[in-house]
Amino acid sequence: MSLLLKKHIREIIPALSDQEFEYVMRHFVPVKRQKHQFLIQADDEVKSNYWVVKGCLKLYCLDDDGKEHILQFAMENWWVSDYIALYSRGKSEFYISCIEDSELLSITMDNIDKLCSEMHAMEHFWNVKKRFGYVALQKRIVSLLKNSAEERYNQLLEQYPQLLQRVPKKMIASYLGVSRETLSRFNAGQDVM
Amino acid sequence: MSLLLKKHIREIIPALSDQEFEYVMRHFVPVKRQKHQFLIQADDEVKSNYWVVKGCLKLYCLDDDGKEHILQFAMENWWVSDYIALYSRGKSEFYISCIEDSELLSITMDNIDKLCSEMHAMEHFWNVKKRFGYVALQKRIVSLLKNSAEERYNQLLEQYPQLLQRVPKKMIASYLGVSRETLSRFNAGQDVM
Repeated sequence: MSLLLKKHIREIIPALSDQEFEYVMRHFVPVKRQKHQFLIQADDEVKSNYWVVKGCLKLYCLDDDGKEHILQFAMENWWVSDYIALYSRGKSEFYISCIEDSELLSITMDNIDKLCSEMHAMEHFWNVKKRFGYVALQKRIVSLLKNSAEERYNQLLEQYPQLLQRVPKKMIASYLGVSRETLSRFNAGQDVM
Repeated sequence: MSLLLKKHIREIIPALSDQEFEYVMRHFVPVKRQKHQFLIQADDEVKSNYWVVKGCLKLYCLDDDGKEHILQFAMENWWVSDYIALYSRGKSEFYISCIEDSELLSITMDNIDKLCSEMHAMEHFWNVKKRFGYVALQKRIVSLLKNSAEERYNQLLEQYPQLLQRVPKKMIASYLGVSRETLSRFNAGQDVM
């Protein structure tokens, strides 16, 4: 578990020594959740960021009619939390639940801040990770504003082919903002190709 | 101009000395653009990030029919660039143009990376700024997925009342993803309230 995280951090900070990594690792706590269990629920105080070692999760909100809107999926190597609540040290308006049995490494925001102030390299790590995160969100907004549902489906298929193998179709439909029936039509198109 | 930026950076790094700030400031270049002029156009190589000293700008893309979709506005104290292109050192698929005559301070990505590696405090500054940016984008996605156009309009009115005074209604409609006519109905509602 720690070997995987070391590899992940060294992709951005190749010079991080084993000793430095061991120090960083002491700030993480392993978390296990079974399929359907929650990592975060609405009204929870959000204090931690999570790195996915194994498994698949979804971040979603509910509208006034109780309809689920999926903002993000998370799989191996991805970070997930409710960042709106985490950064404001507030309560969540979202849910994160497991689509598969999942193993994560969690680190509190206090410990992230501590590591960032103690180690310039770790501040750099999170700074760079946020660049990727920002770009992913920007692309999702462009896609929601500009592309048809079918274009959004094809983009998702191209970017994350493994996601479509692991996630039930009704959740893909919720992420794309279309009905399950509409999604079936795109699928039919894909099968023919 | 530099006094304003010093104040802006010290909101996150209160301990930044005048001498350190002067060093940081040497990496910025003033940029002026008149109303309707472009800061970035599609196919431009994007090398800089911009801080708005004065004025108002819009970041937008065009769809296949040439229709404009506004992703973001930028006013005094906001940072603006095409971050998708900037972080990947690639070409832009977006436009940034001036809604008013605008004065900006620009810094190249190379100089941001240089300052970040030389000064832990500046790495911290951009790390924290990105937290705010990430949260703003996340909120926009939630809003696009979950809220009606009228709810999105009321949110914008609440968050940035000055924006609605400064930006033509057709641009607000483009940002919200509604027609100019639909927006008029929300306005009428507001007038009555």
